[in-house]
Amino acid sequence: MIIVMSQSATREQIDNVEKKLSELGFKTHPIFGEVKTVIGAIGDKRLLNTHAISSMPGVENLVPIMKPYKLASRELKQVPTIIQVGDVTIGGNEIVVMAGPCAIESEELFLETAFKVKEAGAKILRGGAFKPRTSPYSFQGLEEDGLKIMASAREATGLKIVTEVVDTRDVELVASYADIIQIGARNMQNFRLLQEVGQTNKPVLLKRGLSATIEEWLMAAEYIISSGNPNVILCERGIRTFETATRNTIDMSSIPVIKDNSHLPILVDPSHAAGAWKYVGALSKGAIATGADGLIIEVHSNPASALCDGPQSLRPEKFAQLMKEFQAVALAVGRTM
Amino acid sequence: MIIVMSQSATREQIDNVEKKLSELGFKTHPIFGEVKTVIGAIGDKRLLNTHAISSMPGVENLVPIMKPYKLASRELKQVPTIIQVGDVTIGGNEIVVMAGPCAIESEELFLETAFKVKEAGAKILRGGAFKPRTSPYSFQGLEEDGLKIMASAREATGLKIVTEVVDTRDVELVASYADIIQIGARNMQNFRLLQEVGQTNKPVLLKRGLSATIEEWLMAAEYIISSGNPNVILCERGIRTFETATRNTIDMSSIPVIKDNSHLPILVDPSHAAGAWKYVGALSKGAIATGADGLIIEVHSNPASALCDGPQSLRPEKFAQLMKEFQAVALAVGRTM
Amino acid sequence: MIIVMSQSATREQIDNVEKKLSELGFKTHPIFGEVKTVIGAIGDKRLLNTHAISSMPGVENLVPIMKPYKLASRELKQVPTIIQVGDVTIGGNEIVVMAGPCAIESEELFLETAFKVKEAGAKILRGGAFKPRTSPYSFQGLEEDGLKIMASAREATGLKIVTEVVDTRDVELVASYADIIQIGARNMQNFRLLQEVGQTNKPVLLKRGLSATIEEWLMAAEYIISSGNPNVILCERGIRTFETATRNTIDMSSIPVIKDNSHLPILVDPSHAAGAWKYVGALSKGAIATGADGLIIEVHSNPASALCDGPQSLRPEKFAQLMKEFQAVALAVGRTM
Amino acid sequence: MIIVMSQSATREQIDNVEKKLSELGFKTHPIFGEVKTVIGAIGDKRLLNTHAISSMPGVENLVPIMKPYKLASRELKQVPTIIQVGDVTIGGNEIVVMAGPCAIESEELFLETAFKVKEAGAKILRGGAFKPRTSPYSFQGLEEDGLKIMASAREATGLKIVTEVVDTRDVELVASYADIIQIGARNMQNFRLLQEVGQTNKPVLLKRGLSATIEEWLMAAEYIISSGNPNVILCERGIRTFETATRNTIDMSSIPVIKDNSHLPILVDPSHAAGAWKYVGALSKGAIATGADGLIIEVHSNPASALCDGPQSLRPEKFAQLMKEFQAVALAVGRTM
Repeated sequence: MIIVMSQSATREQIDNVEKKLSELGFKTHPIFGEVKTVIGAIGDKRLLNTHAISSMPGVENLVPIMKPYKLASRELKQVPTIIQVGDVTIGGNEIVVMAGPCAIESEELFLETAFKVKEAGAKILRGGAFKPRTSPYSFQGLEEDGLKIMASAREATGLKIVTEVVDTRDVELVASYADIIQIGARNMQNFRLLQEVGQTNKPVLLKRGLSATIEEWLMAAEYIISSGNPNVILCERGIRTFETATRNTIDMSSIPVIKDNSHLPILVDPSHAAGAWKYVGALSKGAIATGADGLIIEVHSNPASALCDGPQSLRPEKFAQLMKEFQAVALAVGRTM
Repeated sequence: MIIVMSQSATREQIDNVEKKLSELGFKTHPIFGEVKTVIGAIGDKRLLNTHAISSMPGVENLVPIMKPYKLASRELKQVPTIIQVGDVTIGGNEIVVMAGPCAIESEELFLETAFKVKEAGAKILRGGAFKPRTSPYSFQGLEEDGLKIMASAREATGLKIVTEVVDTRDVELVASYADIIQIGARNMQNFRLLQEVGQTNKPVLLKRGLSATIEEWLMAAEYIISSGNPNVILCERGIRTFETATRNTIDMSSIPVIKDNSHLPILVDPSHAAGAWKYVGALSKGAIATGADGLIIEVHSNPASALCDGPQSLRPEKFAQLMKEFQAVALAVGRTM
Repeated sequence: MIIVMSQSATREQIDNVEKKLSELGFKTHPIFGEVKTVIGAIGDKRLLNTHAISSMPGVENLVPIMKPYKLASRELKQVPTIIQVGDVTIGGNEIVVMAGPCAIESEELFLETAFKVKEAGAKILRGGAFKPRTSPYSFQGLEEDGLKIMASAREATGLKIVTEVVDTRDVELVASYADIIQIGARNMQNFRLLQEVGQTNKPVLLKRGLSATIEEWLMAAEYIISSGNPNVILCERGIRTFETATRNTIDMSSIPVIKDNSHLPILVDPSHAAGAWKYVGALSKGAIATGADGLIIEVHSNPASALCDGPQSLRPEKFAQLMKEFQAVALAVGRTM
Repeated sequence: MIIVMSQSATREQIDNVEKKLSELGFKTHPIFGEVKTVIGAIGDKRLLNTHAISSMPGVENLVPIMKPYKLASRELKQVPTIIQVGDVTIGGNEIVVMAGPCAIESEELFLETAFKVKEAGAKILRGGAFKPRTSPYSFQGLEEDGLKIMASAREATGLKIVTEVVDTRDVELVASYADIIQIGARNMQNFRLLQEVGQTNKPVLLKRGLSATIEEWLMAAEYIISSGNPNVILCERGIRTFETATRNTIDMSSIPVIKDNSHLPILVDPSHAAGAWKYVGALSKGAIATGADGLIIEVHSNPASALCDGPQSLRPEKFAQLMKEFQAVALAVGRTM
């Protein structure tokens, strides 16, 4: 860590900061510049209460040198994390596609979609039983009944299932049904929920928050891993920017940045990012070519009757056609699908 | 609501949309433009599953005319909501100041700060017992022990207390101690938590999410009010933008926008927005002059030893001096303090 | 256009708005809702001084139905615009790659890079003679000497050249050397410069502004086209967001959005978007797979000695290797390269 | 400057960076941490071609310690810059208000507004003769005829005049009429234009770009000052964020940040920031209380007939009433008006 002293810092203030750092177990290396002094502090930043330093008189700011995450970092673990969900491998050479409707609405409709996405090549079935909705007046999901429908669909199709949990009180319940537990974008910094899913033995699909930096996203993964669950799958789903032509702005550069800084696999959710089914094909191909390990796509047998996110759902036939196109792109970048 | 049909929409598609709207209980008024057709739909949008319409063939987009929030809206209730917390009135003519440390660290330190902020004129004492921290390695709060310390400080000083809840499982506990329950920025769209605090009888201080639009913020208030608790106090604490000179960008225009669209009171938290104590004075005065109903400010007897957010905490003496300056501004805009 | 009247608008105010719209040549269609009234106005919005309406008493806001751009729109011209630069075709089935250093520093170095990017398959040579730099103390370009070096490189290699103009006074000069004139991100709304290049007969590479919406970007294209020059090539180069892991956030979804709304070709500049050469390969593949018509990439024979943007420049050998990988992706999405 | 070496940097790479820094005239101080090495480099960063270092093998990133601006910095000049425009003082204790219509439309209308804003207490008259408009189909200003009308209004009222220049070719012309030359937000990084106005002897009102950081804004000021013109007045007019309730988000914290880092005066333009006249009063008071040195406000005698930005223009009577309220706030923070 580097402590930058202000231009007007006195020698005494500099000495005090050095003394405080020593007390905290750091070795210090002051560098006296022509205008400002900076102090290099060697030691484990994670042990440091940085606030104690940054509010000392004469301190301008602190510059961290080490990343704040450790367990999620590529520095700690250089081989990619591969997550096994039954016979499905996430983070390996194969591109994995998760598909299904936004919300589970009825058993019949869900099974129909499930069989179709399986036929098209999806390996994981998605569906929401607990829905976090912007409006209290919107459909909030079938809750446990929805989980039961998912379980039947798994039985019937052999697909693994992924579904979201939104409340610490439901983690045990959701974990008892799901093969993968999803943490949605709005809960990415619901730290208690992260700790709870970190205590299950189910892989966690961790969506990026709408205004989360990549570093904060990896810190959220760190919460889960440090609670005991190393099986975190990251999912880029767009960030909030000034552009309104799409619902959110998919940050495609997060893919190589994550690959550079972390060992965790990363998927992309083009449906929620774009908010419009017509852009899902192009963005999915882009995500695969950029290096994503998989996709999570909304598919609905009858988008016009969907109780949630209809405009961004693909019909099963369109999805099946796109899956063939995705495969060609996967092969072009040396991946299987 | 207005349905905009795409340029290439056929007459049949237009008819189908009109038919569907009728089925949903809307009266329809098509307007055939030179290039595009739009359909006006009269009725209660909140009853409508808009997805059913927006994914119909030929539909380009929907334009809502009514606000999505109702109970939080100025249209429903034109007189400002005034919230009584013991003998403290929030949302009236008086500017209310809440002050105290970020986290409760020890009874002695907390009481010291409590007495000093009271002396300076604060009416409500803030302090965190449950802290949502970006890093799992940071201090997470004293939990119930912290609540007990707050209760003692209330007893000792007569100040009312406000503290944050971060888990649905703790709502009952926190409500049993706090006078005002705080929902932090990261939990603004933790809808289950909103519903839980909506079932208590304690006023709720609802901070704006870092990437929440004002409309989404009012929808979060709507969750609380529609769960049975009308006593919501909004709190602007900065939004996330590209600017890094301050931790977040305080959106001062949210004050008049909220006043225009809602009857709820609005406070400003300049400490978290700026992330630096030296900007707290200027921004507080700005908030009062812009029309805020109060402030929530971090004050710590010894910022350099704080376990959390030291750099943004004012020392009690500085706070006391600023309170006098705030009073002059309050008077200049016709408020008392 | 739809005029939304406020809830408290009187009948007289509604009548006045209708009357004013009639005077402006619109046909009006009021729809009286249960709470609010909206007025549909049929006619050419571009003829309307919308300010006249939006500040009339009782008007809440205006909702445009038609896009504000016309000449740049897909609605006007449904076949894609194909731009011929000598024997290079931009906007057709072939992916076109422009490459070269950020700034021209010396003839020798520039020629060396030029031959190498040609050998690797680039069709257009990029290089900056006039550099818009954030700091007045940074290298500002060789100006006309730089243009002369570019012309020699064109002569020597047969590559076409693209270079930026930053001042209306230089448009004639730059146009006399360049095959394609570049408008940089910072000048995307330098409307006088747009009009000037709109009066040349050279194709224009129009970079997206850092905070420009896609609609504003197409309006900038509209300035050029309406000045007489239909040969506009759009170039996505990242937008400014809160994320700092990359210099800017590449908005990959702008590619399908542009294809949906405009007939103009679109390239991607991964070098400026990412600000780091190590991400250029992944983002380039992503751009091709998402549907971009080409790329513009920084290549420098010796990045460590570059006077500008060294960290984002690829070495020629790395560029040559990536070009082969790009080709595989192009083929996978049915494009040639 | 601090050079952070990557974890995998070899001793040889570290030595090479030190050697290169020495060649560039820096004294180096390596600090060997437990995991990473950082190198402190003492010397004038402005002399350094940082690219040469940041792309060297083993370098992870550079951390600047000194601000990139010098002439605009508080470090260089600790007393505030006071700018004299005839008998009007900007940057002193008095709050200065500039007011007038967005665009000059006719002499009669302009004079009418001019007399009214003078009567209300404005000291400077604003008006646009050259208008940068998003659409090529919008009114672009009366050009030199507009300047002549402004000059007459100055003669008639005694007010000083401020008006925008948008093209390097017009700087001499505009400077011959205006008392203060305005650089609009869209031209904040039109560096040639900055250099041109830097060569006049007229004060420059430099608006902040929509996506400009405060540092970039001060760098733009640095362009003007380093060209020979020290009389720069900064103007905050809102930045682009995700929030759409106001046209832009006024960044009120830029006021104390500028005061902390620069000696230049700063005004606020609430009209363009909010885009709605009804928020101008609240934001103006907020700006004064936060520490702004003045305001620039749109006033139009008949907003409903304005050719530009009518919705954000105040009527003269409303402006006159607000001016009294502003004065009370100014006095409360120890300023005159």
